[in-house]
Amino acid sequence: MRTFDLLTPAAAIEALNAALSAAQRPIPIETIPSAEAYQRVLARAVVSPTPLPEFRRSTVDGFAVQAASVPGPLHLVGEVMMGEISTLRVGAGEAAQVHTGGHVPEGADAVVMVEDTKEIVQDDGNGSSAVRRPSSVQVSTRLNIGDNVLRAGEDVQAGDEVVRVGTRLREQELGGIMALGIRQIEVYRQPRVAIIASGDELVPATSDVLPGQIRNINAPMMEALVRRCGGVPVDFGILPDRRDAFEVAAKKAIETCDVVLFMAGSSVGERDFVPEVVNGMGQPGILVHGIQFRPGKPTLFAVCDGGQPGVAKPVFGLPGNPISALVTATLFVQPTLWRVQGAVAPLPNFVAATLTEAVKSPKDLEHWVPVAITQDGDTFSATPISTKSNLIFGLVRADGLMCVPIGTDKLAAGSPVRVRLFA
Amino acid sequence: MRTFDLLTPAAAIEALNAALSAAQRPIPIETIPSAEAYQRVLARAVVSPTPLPEFRRSTVDGFAVQAASVPGPLHLVGEVMMGEISTLRVGAGEAAQVHTGGHVPEGADAVVMVEDTKEIVQDDGNGSSAVRRPSSVQVSTRLNIGDNVLRAGEDVQAGDEVVRVGTRLREQELGGIMALGIRQIEVYRQPRVAIIASGDELVPATSDVLPGQIRNINAPMMEALVRRCGGVPVDFGILPDRRDAFEVAAKKAIETCDVVLFMAGSSVGERDFVPEVVNGMGQPGILVHGIQFRPGKPTLFAVCDGGQPGVAKPVFGLPGNPISALVTATLFVQPTLWRVQGAVAPLPNFVAATLTEAVKSPKDLEHWVPVAITQDGDTFSATPISTKSNLIFGLVRADGLMCVPIGTDKLAAGSPVRVRLFA
Repeated sequence: MRTFDLLTPAAAIEALNAALSAAQRPIPIETIPSAEAYQRVLARAVVSPTPLPEFRRSTVDGFAVQAASVPGPLHLVGEVMMGEISTLRVGAGEAAQVHTGGHVPEGADAVVMVEDTKEIVQDDGNGSSAVRRPSSVQVSTRLNIGDNVLRAGEDVQAGDEVVRVGTRLREQELGGIMALGIRQIEVYRQPRVAIIASGDELVPATSDVLPGQIRNINAPMMEALVRRCGGVPVDFGILPDRRDAFEVAAKKAIETCDVVLFMAGSSVGERDFVPEVVNGMGQPGILVHGIQFRPGKPTLFAVCDGGQPGVAKPVFGLPGNPISALVTATLFVQPTLWRVQGAVAPLPNFVAATLTEAVKSPKDLEHWVPVAITQDGDTFSATPISTKSNLIFGLVRADGLMCVPIGTDKLAAGSPVRVRLFA
Repeated sequence: MRTFDLLTPAAAIEALNAALSAAQRPIPIETIPSAEAYQRVLARAVVSPTPLPEFRRSTVDGFAVQAASVPGPLHLVGEVMMGEISTLRVGAGEAAQVHTGGHVPEGADAVVMVEDTKEIVQDDGNGSSAVRRPSSVQVSTRLNIGDNVLRAGEDVQAGDEVVRVGTRLREQELGGIMALGIRQIEVYRQPRVAIIASGDELVPATSDVLPGQIRNINAPMMEALVRRCGGVPVDFGILPDRRDAFEVAAKKAIETCDVVLFMAGSSVGERDFVPEVVNGMGQPGILVHGIQFRPGKPTLFAVCDGGQPGVAKPVFGLPGNPISALVTATLFVQPTLWRVQGAVAPLPNFVAATLTEAVKSPKDLEHWVPVAITQDGDTFSATPISTKSNLIFGLVRADGLMCVPIGTDKLAAGSPVRVRLFA
């Protein structure tokens, strides 16, 4: 095979997602401590076992009162201690001191803020201001019933579904789940992601090189990206340019991992064994081979069942050169890693900017151009970085990627563009 | 003290940053393996010890030639093996087979893509197609000198400063640094961040509660946020509402940590010991106490030297209720954690949206309203979530925060707004 039919990026992604959606056996579920669930994806809805708050609480420092008794002077019946359900009872013309978050005692129907009161202090005689307590308070404002009070169950009721399946757990979900006393939750297992490099010229990224050799920097880059998207990278090392080596790795990867990334070997050269071996990884197999996309035209998307009907594991053949590998992984692999975990990927961070220089682009490709961003107050400028896809420092100088769509062969200096920032 | 002078959020941040900039003794530097440096901040510029690429490389599968010899038939002198510096020499009218990434041998000045050639195959007689090799190739296109060739040093030259001090290391910096064979780099130490909760009503987040008690969910939420920003959370547990307990914790925190977060206790109630004890944590001390900001008006910013002149450690008094704590930490603590490491915080992710309902806001406060986002194609709608600041599930339902500026008391339904998405 010398050439392949190119799909648009949108059509390629659609084909991939359609095949993944057909999976009847999604990634397994596991139960883990809630405290360790940050950034994991919820696999069973969290239903509240209790109301929250569990008791009526004050939202301010002040005095629990009957709204009908104010404004006016109130007799102080005591102080609500933090961490206790108070046994005080507040009647007409009475007030109980209460702190932010404290229990609003029986009889009270509102809390007046301390700022809106004047305390009438009775000295206890020992001269220490720390133990002076007011005996009554003068309230200067009006109140409505319920002012500055959180009702029991105002946040959630017992039985409410409070976090949905498929939610990526952020700080607030972690806090909410723990507030309810739920210590174990069910989440999707983190996908194991096979990272398979190849090339007789490659040596591990931390090795010395002999003349003609190249360090395999794709492995550490992909490992970082996979971890950032909630996956567990599984390093398959560097395959030699031999078909049997690819076949052994492909078999092991589809059996033991949930996602497979081939780095290099998906084009049409003599060393490009990926298309052939992916055919042996199960149904439906190759969906996309070649995308109207730069950098990364020869990218391959497959979904394979590893011989287990109902299973649908994404398999990517990414370009071997580092810029193409990182750009295709950012745009195509990253959302798929979230999808495999049952979640929608976080929205990428785009900024609106003005292009500082004209950019030329092949009309038949969607071209993602690395750009450096400069900020001046609230406005951003984007300067294209001319680089070949083998030159990783082109991306080091870049803050993000700008898309030149199919059908556009030039963007003039001054054009408004949207830049997708790297994470 | 009953009230405090409120600063605008912008003025508060400016005061904090000015005091931090005065530090003469920034966070210490440490040397770590490059492979473990993802998201760390570079403390000494990386200078390339070698050119990259180290040798001339082909960017395509094809044939190394002299540009002046094509189009036309070329005699094939051999194949460049991957991982080697070839000893072949390509003269006029000659070609050497080369693979993507392979060495471009002496004599050649361009590479023609395999797609633009026809091979003339001479059967070696054993009938196996795998060992058939062309003896010559017919090239159909014109070439310029340098086409499809990466020059040695085209990415970087030896001696180039390739990654600057203060850079947060992304996938590409990691890859670039490792490509150069640099295995150890100097980065700023990860800041240790003291997380100090207080309140007699609080119990640890994983504990059972008695009536009137509340789980301390701020600690796990802040730990997650601190880790996400490159810090190391140090849990100081829950202080009782006693000044001596605050003093002991404050002293230990300023001595052993780089950033101090008090959760609760910074307002003006009887239990609010933070303002007093921060005064004992060193110069210049409290910079901001009270911000024209909702949720989180009583927030306190300080910078303290712990008695060591030249040191400048940020100290925050955040509100104790979870929504205010998380919102103030997102807007104020997060950028500071990066600043302490010598880096600029990543740009937050804003999306433009249309407000679905009118929002009222206090005119004298900058009000950050939790909103849920719905997406329809490329357009987003933002629905405000009415919540009190003690109700964490209000943030669980939110995708981001929308800012109603000071001076605005109402936004009409249909208003264009910018929503800062949660990470």
